[in-house]
Amino acid sequence: MNFTSILYILGKLIEIEGALFIVPAIVSLFYGESQGAVYFGLALFCVTLGRLIGIKKRKLETYYAKEGLVSVALGWLIMSFFGCIPFVITKEIPSFTDAFFETVSGFTTTGSSILSDVESLSRCSLFWRSFTHWIGGMGVFVFMLAILPMTGAQNMHLMRSESPGPDVGKLVPKLGDSAKILYTIYFGISLVEAIVLLISGMPLYDAITLTFGTAGTGGFGIKNSSIADYTYAQQLIISIFMILFGINFNFYFFIFIRKSIREALNIDEVKAYLAVIVSATVIIMINARHLFTDLSDSFIKALFQVSSIITTTGYGTDDFNQWPALSKTILVFLMFVGACAGSTGGGFKISRIIILVKSYMRELMSFIHPRLVKNITMDGRRVKEETVSGVKVYLVSYVLVLIVSVLVISIDGFDFETNFTAVMATLNNIGPGLSKVGSTGNYGGFSDLSKYVLSFDMLAGRLELYPMLLLFAPGTWRKK
Amino acid sequence: MNFTSILYILGKLIEIEGALFIVPAIVSLFYGESQGAVYFGLALFCVTLGRLIGIKKRKLETYYAKEGLVSVALGWLIMSFFGCIPFVITKEIPSFTDAFFETVSGFTTTGSSILSDVESLSRCSLFWRSFTHWIGGMGVFVFMLAILPMTGAQNMHLMRSESPGPDVGKLVPKLGDSAKILYTIYFGISLVEAIVLLISGMPLYDAITLTFGTAGTGGFGIKNSSIADYTYAQQLIISIFMILFGINFNFYFFIFIRKSIREALNIDEVKAYLAVIVSATVIIMINARHLFTDLSDSFIKALFQVSSIITTTGYGTDDFNQWPALSKTILVFLMFVGACAGSTGGGFKISRIIILVKSYMRELMSFIHPRLVKNITMDGRRVKEETVSGVKVYLVSYVLVLIVSVLVISIDGFDFETNFTAVMATLNNIGPGLSKVGSTGNYGGFSDLSKYVLSFDMLAGRLELYPMLLLFAPGTWRKK
Repeated sequence: MNFTSILYILGKLIEIEGALFIVPAIVSLFYGESQGAVYFGLALFCVTLGRLIGIKKRKLETYYAKEGLVSVALGWLIMSFFGCIPFVITKEIPSFTDAFFETVSGFTTTGSSILSDVESLSRCSLFWRSFTHWIGGMGVFVFMLAILPMTGAQNMHLMRSESPGPDVGKLVPKLGDSAKILYTIYFGISLVEAIVLLISGMPLYDAITLTFGTAGTGGFGIKNSSIADYTYAQQLIISIFMILFGINFNFYFFIFIRKSIREALNIDEVKAYLAVIVSATVIIMINARHLFTDLSDSFIKALFQVSSIITTTGYGTDDFNQWPALSKTILVFLMFVGACAGSTGGGFKISRIIILVKSYMRELMSFIHPRLVKNITMDGRRVKEETVSGVKVYLVSYVLVLIVSVLVISIDGFDFETNFTAVMATLNNIGPGLSKVGSTGNYGGFSDLSKYVLSFDMLAGRLELYPMLLLFAPGTWRKK
Repeated sequence: MNFTSILYILGKLIEIEGALFIVPAIVSLFYGESQGAVYFGLALFCVTLGRLIGIKKRKLETYYAKEGLVSVALGWLIMSFFGCIPFVITKEIPSFTDAFFETVSGFTTTGSSILSDVESLSRCSLFWRSFTHWIGGMGVFVFMLAILPMTGAQNMHLMRSESPGPDVGKLVPKLGDSAKILYTIYFGISLVEAIVLLISGMPLYDAITLTFGTAGTGGFGIKNSSIADYTYAQQLIISIFMILFGINFNFYFFIFIRKSIREALNIDEVKAYLAVIVSATVIIMINARHLFTDLSDSFIKALFQVSSIITTTGYGTDDFNQWPALSKTILVFLMFVGACAGSTGGGFKISRIIILVKSYMRELMSFIHPRLVKNITMDGRRVKEETVSGVKVYLVSYVLVLIVSVLVISIDGFDFETNFTAVMATLNNIGPGLSKVGSTGNYGGFSDLSKYVLSFDMLAGRLELYPMLLLFAPGTWRKK
């Protein structure tokens, strides 16, 4: 274990978080809120601490996958630790466990909340809460790679741990340039959403914070009614942007940087993703038609909830706990499906599902044509066997984490639907589940133990399991 | 597709089923029940039909895995079709769908029932219903291999399709001898159970039918209260025999045929299986202690329910729907776990779980020691990589069937817990689930469509997915 490199990376991370605290501090000046002092203070503290860690001229030595994964896991834990301190100091969320849960939920873009009344928060804290979504959406290590001159192929381990998908690659030869391109696309689409929302008549504060929640596919709202009180037009805008942020960013790279629509339209994952959204929306419109007033009402409500769940955002405009069983079940499975790899969305990822379904079809075909060895293809290219095998082990790890988590939180004694969907909603970074953690409920009722388990699940889901699991593996902490 | 071989095999199967109908027919003579005539008539009809199919001197030509799998799938469907006819003709279960569901549930040793009052059935029909468990437990094709002179390595395809586990092998070089050994052990332990139950003071009819249900790990009872009204001693006897029938039959082969206790105790799967039973029983005894009168009451109730669920039998002595959340959740996961490979129990199988957990640990270790390629071992021997990969594809197929089934049956509009556990309970051949299909409920409330989906799940679970899935694969029915 190369502790020097890990410490170097974590020092930089704390410094970056310090700089980010300045944004809510500035917001507090506009609203004349005294809580802003806490954010200024923390900004100063974190930048100083980060510098102190870096003062010994620690250099980034050569490191391997293990160090990369552990750095990312520890980095996200530390980021959440510092990120929750304002809530505790301002007493807006007095319990440390609750504040930590809420901040992990923010950074991991989950959007699960322990708050029953978000409107009681100060404007700057509410802003910080939404801002964590935007930071976590594209990832803070990707940000680090974009702004710092970190050279060496080894840094790919950081990018790989933080970027979702079965087979993370660089867009362009240089890692730093790839990170810059991703953040440019991310910032660009976010800016467009905020402007469109402003044009629709939404106040600036709402437009920015809701854009943070959409872009990171997070789901923290600033009203107790989530998105239900906004106009139909605004709901539709948010639906569309949720879908856009759930698309594999390669799509935008092909369109805007390589200017090749043909390559963009060739991505199987994006086609499957859109097909699932359309089918689910249509089935729900039919199945739950008695609950809606007319066709446009049913279209907007079904589309909004489907896009919100499949992209793992978690915004709500309707209490789908009241929907008929088929519609609810579709949403539960969409929780598992998730968005595209290489997007800001969570879940199992469409591309993994495609690979699993194809490897299942291949197994069936092997009974019919035993001597035919077929490669699995995606986007017209062959998928490496190690990727296929990696996806299968990922499913195994996923099921194991799911089972252990449901078992532990069921000690609290809630019903099976609550426990199962609470784990699904956190592990897939969605936010609300069904029953007691449904769109009208919250996670405040769980015990501290369960809140830490669910926080672990949120981090495990965001970082795609292995970084978090590795923290508990025997051998990880051995010096060499 | 070699239809001649398939027809040959199916003809033999129908003949065997005809012979089996004679058993309930004889029972009817003891009780002077007129329903017996139906069983006699069907016996005659099936034997004649089987002979007619064989009359063209059809020979067993060389066939391949595909034909083996398809024969087994069709065989089980045909067996269930003829097997349900007595219930329909005698009007004891007037609806064909219901009778078919009940018979599939019998042969697949699931034990899910659409009946709310089993005690109203005639003694011979009740006997036939339990007898289907015993027939299906070890498998009718294994029986065929044991009694007919079928030579050729190709017949291994039949055995492999019907015997559960990730890596089915022969016990001895000759397939027919292996089948004979399996049926001898099966018959022997069944006989011992029936005798022990008789000694405990149980009436002969009850002792035989409950032995059928235990041996096949089926779970059809002959009383509306399942096993709850029998004495503690009898409940304990049944618990122990459920556990014994859930053990890999290799264990008994080593002990009774090879006389090698050392080899028997070396089976990792058996050790893990017993460890899971002990842990689950102890946790439930503690978690649900307020519901039991004393220590022995809690021990017997916890042990009985745990053994019943993990072996996928489905007998009940307590309404675990009323147990606290953790205990219920443990049972839901035990539904998935299932018994040992090579036993009469269903579920995912302990050995598959061991392989999955080990392959997950291997993946984690590969981050720590990237250059160390570790083999997965079981019982001290290396597990072939194709077996490991097969287990992973099995999990994928399992999850796909689970998701599609839950989606379709949720059209009926029951709650998520009912739908999810109904599919878990049928796909794993257990019987009762939770909520509306819990130990005090039944499957009668589902629509015909759902009953056929759940029947498919029972067959898919019993035959370990591929035979049933292959029926729907493109290319299976093409002539060449």
